[in-house]
Amino acid sequence: MNAIHPVQGRRRTIPPGFIEVLRERLGDRVVTSPAACEHHGRDESPYPTTPPDVVVYALNTEEVAWVAAHCNTHRVPLIPYGAGSSLEGHLLAVQGGVSLDLSRMDQIVAVHPEDFTVTVQAGVTRKQLNDSIRDTGLFFPIDPGADASLGGMAATRASGTNAVRYGTMRENVVSLKVVTADGRVIDTASRARKSSAGYDLTRVFVGSEGTLGIITEVTVRLYPQPEAISAAICNFPELSSAVQSVIEIIQMGVPVARVEFMDTAAVRATNAYSKLELKESPLLLFEFHGSPAGVREQAEVVQEIARANGGEDFAWAERPEDRSRLWTARHNAYFAGLQLRPGCRASTTDVCVPISRLAECVTETAADMDQASFPYTIVGHVGDGNFHVLMLLDPDDPRQFEESEVLNRRLVERAIRMDGTCTGEHGVGLHKMAFMELEHGRDALDLMAALKHAFDPHDILNPGKIIPLAPGVELAA
Amino acid sequence: MNAIHPVQGRRRTIPPGFIEVLRERLGDRVVTSPAACEHHGRDESPYPTTPPDVVVYALNTEEVAWVAAHCNTHRVPLIPYGAGSSLEGHLLAVQGGVSLDLSRMDQIVAVHPEDFTVTVQAGVTRKQLNDSIRDTGLFFPIDPGADASLGGMAATRASGTNAVRYGTMRENVVSLKVVTADGRVIDTASRARKSSAGYDLTRVFVGSEGTLGIITEVTVRLYPQPEAISAAICNFPELSSAVQSVIEIIQMGVPVARVEFMDTAAVRATNAYSKLELKESPLLLFEFHGSPAGVREQAEVVQEIARANGGEDFAWAERPEDRSRLWTARHNAYFAGLQLRPGCRASTTDVCVPISRLAECVTETAADMDQASFPYTIVGHVGDGNFHVLMLLDPDDPRQFEESEVLNRRLVERAIRMDGTCTGEHGVGLHKMAFMELEHGRDALDLMAALKHAFDPHDILNPGKIIPLAPGVELAA
Repeated sequence: MNAIHPVQGRRRTIPPGFIEVLRERLGDRVVTSPAACEHHGRDESPYPTTPPDVVVYALNTEEVAWVAAHCNTHRVPLIPYGAGSSLEGHLLAVQGGVSLDLSRMDQIVAVHPEDFTVTVQAGVTRKQLNDSIRDTGLFFPIDPGADASLGGMAATRASGTNAVRYGTMRENVVSLKVVTADGRVIDTASRARKSSAGYDLTRVFVGSEGTLGIITEVTVRLYPQPEAISAAICNFPELSSAVQSVIEIIQMGVPVARVEFMDTAAVRATNAYSKLELKESPLLLFEFHGSPAGVREQAEVVQEIARANGGEDFAWAERPEDRSRLWTARHNAYFAGLQLRPGCRASTTDVCVPISRLAECVTETAADMDQASFPYTIVGHVGDGNFHVLMLLDPDDPRQFEESEVLNRRLVERAIRMDGTCTGEHGVGLHKMAFMELEHGRDALDLMAALKHAFDPHDILNPGKIIPLAPGVELAA
Repeated sequence: MNAIHPVQGRRRTIPPGFIEVLRERLGDRVVTSPAACEHHGRDESPYPTTPPDVVVYALNTEEVAWVAAHCNTHRVPLIPYGAGSSLEGHLLAVQGGVSLDLSRMDQIVAVHPEDFTVTVQAGVTRKQLNDSIRDTGLFFPIDPGADASLGGMAATRASGTNAVRYGTMRENVVSLKVVTADGRVIDTASRARKSSAGYDLTRVFVGSEGTLGIITEVTVRLYPQPEAISAAICNFPELSSAVQSVIEIIQMGVPVARVEFMDTAAVRATNAYSKLELKESPLLLFEFHGSPAGVREQAEVVQEIARANGGEDFAWAERPEDRSRLWTARHNAYFAGLQLRPGCRASTTDVCVPISRLAECVTETAADMDQASFPYTIVGHVGDGNFHVLMLLDPDDPRQFEESEVLNRRLVERAIRMDGTCTGEHGVGLHKMAFMELEHGRDALDLMAALKHAFDPHDILNPGKIIPLAPGVELAA
């Protein structure tokens, strides 16, 4: 592999007339301008722009199916594009081809409040979804920082701050409408809450990052808006006591809705960016959902456990506007971090370990990162054992990127050694491919490759992603 | 198809010397006696015994891998066998071959209380698991009526009465150790609570009923034993008011741990079998888990909603022995039902629909069943929209079996028409295969078949199950 992309196949040649056929049916929704192609050839990863040959804007499932069949016939790569907020190079067109922009597929298809489900087109974003269902008394909890599309969230098995209570996309996708590589349309499941009727096609596609099929509709679970919510912040003398508190809180069965960790650098960045005056030491940020009495009870138990572990300055945010300010600040931790070094090139990574190993993993990581020649922050969804390292690199110094990759490798190896995973929620994209064999072993990767080949025999769907090639194997062009 | 089995391939011939090679390595754990073969050729389904050619008792993953490789080389069917408690013909040796009995693989491999996980060999049963971890303060909630093995529960995507609160095996399996068709051993995931690192192999194998690989170890999530538990019974004038109460309870966000429905016949059977004096009308059986105050609060909300819907005689079971008697009675509803017609042949079926359609589905089903020439009961995990019909047939009257199949077909078609599934928790086995195309459509079934072929190219793993053959296709012998 080279320092920019792992080697994932050559750019393929677009056959003559291929784009004209697209234009005949889709008109000016077929765009080849450099601006559009470049925009669709980058995400929030540190990789350089890798544009597709053409961008197609689809309006419905039928169009997606038609485009897929056309690409399959001509062996042209097809890469679904949602909000462009992926972090690991998922949507870069490493073999060229078509970027299929689904952002105009933004319709709410069906709301079933009595069943706690909603069906949306893949381009609907999570904020749009919550705005549209607000008056049902229900909400959709999953919140990766970005205002990602539901299709993209399903495709990367996204989660975020609420996962400790509500689970990830893995648990919350009820059913998907999917276009296969050869342009057929399937529904992966009924709307029943549970089923034992055959293979779990829903979970096959959740997390498949556009490599097995193109998600065009998503049905997800909704939850009652909690009657009462409260949030609190607690500072700790050190990271390990914060993590120990979280373990004990979960062990007590407290159904905490959110529990987030920020290291001192992240707190400092957030204070500067969001005009807050948080005490600059490791802290936990809590949110509790339930009945008024239930929330009070949860908060009391948590406060007691935090104090016993050296937590101090337990501060409450009871008013909605204060809570909102706090969580906006947390969600902006990424952008706040960037401001620690204006103009920097950011590389962000995430791992997840069993919670019993979390303190050890974060402590070792912080010690390792302290040797770096650039600043960094650590934030984490600690209830899940998941944390992120944001590395702020000098864009004009390629050695810093190489250094960050070495640190990233050590971080991932550490997490896997502790029975964890190379990515808790970002997905594999390009950036984590090199670790797939270390995490899963060659035999499990071979099964993944067999699944990929069974579903996409001509390797047109987001080719060159997720599964690293076995040594010596060359991708078909 | 005939009235006994759908046509799922001919019995295959065991090559000469095949069993001798098994004996050489495994000695007297290779059994060909008619008694052992017959025992391993039946489950709790209404189908006649269909024995394998040989039964092999494995003690560890290495032996399973060796047996799989041997079967794969010689194209001999291999059917994993756990507790034998499946209900739909899952383990019948329709093509003959090896029944691989995993019940002696009954070791607890690793308990990680601080991570809320336990790893067990596939033959460990759910009661054995809970007994072995009792002193950790944690428990494993999933409870199909039978004392099933964890491997079997994972393979059928089992659930039970607690699923409304704790989810099914889909949500609670963290990782699996699996032997592939060609005898390789893989781990499907790390012990991290969440991961976005590639395809979800865990969920590929959960619910695959032994057709994609053989599960030899299961890592599952555990939960804190609730500080307080209470149970209650409430009678309703009719089914629909009971179901309406459940919808409102869930809409209010009450985290009810269990909510079970029994029809009048099921209550009558349970009274007779379990020496209870429940009022013989439709009833709901609740259980609440939480802190003492939380449980009290949940109970108050539920009582209020039930009353507003015509519920009466709300009766509490606060003492552990009363609760235990009640839930034992519920778990024995199947056996109680059988006693409504001693010596009968039972056919039990389950469907699951979105909860908004549940009242309609159960009401129509009861009206349809009332025309039957045999008795029946209906019980359900109503919080999930899942219910069971137990049909009590005269074993000497084949017309009753045919009649039950017609009623079953109408039930399944009704559920699918209401955007539900042909099985909520029993699995497909043989009995639901005929409905797979109706539920999923041919294109989705083709994907399942492609997955099966990719993972088991010689079709040795529990062949003739789950996926009906496309018209005109003959299974390879």
